[in-house]
Amino acid sequence: MAASPETTQRPPLAPDHRFTPTTEPFRWENIPVTAYQRTPATAADFAGITRQTLFGQSGETIGFEVRYFEIAPGGWSSLECHGHAHAVIGLRGVGKVLLGDTVQTLRFLDLAYIGPNCVHRLVNDEPTPFGFLCIVDAKRDRPRRLRPADVPDLLTNPALAALIQRGGVQGAPQPTQSGKTTSLD
Amino acid sequence: MAASPETTQRPPLAPDHRFTPTTEPFRWENIPVTAYQRTPATAADFAGITRQTLFGQSGETIGFEVRYFEIAPGGWSSLECHGHAHAVIGLRGVGKVLLGDTVQTLRFLDLAYIGPNCVHRLVNDEPTPFGFLCIVDAKRDRPRRLRPADVPDLLTNPALAALIQRGGVQGAPQPTQSGKTTSLD
Repeated sequence: MAASPETTQRPPLAPDHRFTPTTEPFRWENIPVTAYQRTPATAADFAGITRQTLFGQSGETIGFEVRYFEIAPGGWSSLECHGHAHAVIGLRGVGKVLLGDTVQTLRFLDLAYIGPNCVHRLVNDEPTPFGFLCIVDAKRDRPRRLRPADVPDLLTNPALAALIQRGGVQGAPQPTQSGKTTSLD
Repeated sequence: MAASPETTQRPPLAPDHRFTPTTEPFRWENIPVTAYQRTPATAADFAGITRQTLFGQSGETIGFEVRYFEIAPGGWSSLECHGHAHAVIGLRGVGKVLLGDTVQTLRFLDLAYIGPNCVHRLVNDEPTPFGFLCIVDAKRDRPRRLRPADVPDLLTNPALAALIQRGGVQGAPQPTQSGKTTSLD
């Protein structure tokens, strides 16, 4: 069965996105660096984190999104949970992943599965950037932003508390969940 | 709103999969190396390629699968097309991607989008392993395996013909598409 000319001669549906490894931080041609989130939040809810959506926001015929997040030294993502899951793959540096009542260390190509309704935060306590892929279903629920006071059981564990109490947000008012959330969701 | 103990204390739903970078080829703890495909095929339909499914076959609550393929020096994947798309990210080495009527070179963190019904094959003509992530929707159609004779228009381009005519499969009988296909689909 011969493939039709239409099929065989179709050009790639997206331009070739060339990775440019000599730049700091990691960047791709024609892939914009977007805000970590647009949802209103306290200033200390997250710090030093950027997002680049590698697949899933350019008309691709896929039911998922592949995002690259990079956390600068000393930075962290929001403390949150939601009904959808994250598939996380370490790409550069070393990070810590608060994952329910555990802490995992994530290095190059280490995997972390953040299951539904699992409280999580990613943190970079190292002197070099921590970068990772985070793949999610395109259709997903909004994250629920958490304050330290929302997870009292976790605070009893000093190792977890150290990741939860970043930026002095304990007791800060929880932001209103309005508009499309584009955080580490 | 306090997260429930059930939520906050839930352990990771999958074990931590630690990447072991000192081994050749790339391997992960507790991630099996699976056959590239189970569909009957001619011996030369593909060569030197392995698959490891990093996410999506361990009961995760996700609608996609994240697979790592590694092609040994001189190897290649099947020549095929199908209705679903591939999101490909280079992880090690250098490979060539036949993508419709183009050839792309894929290096570390380069991206390639293989759209619906786009004829494709990945090839390693370098002396080191070529490894890449290939992310797909969990629900997807079966690939249509192609013979060189199925893509006569592409064969008129020497650069494409060199990738299509691997293993002397020209004119070989097309395998029966029976059973669950687990190739680069």
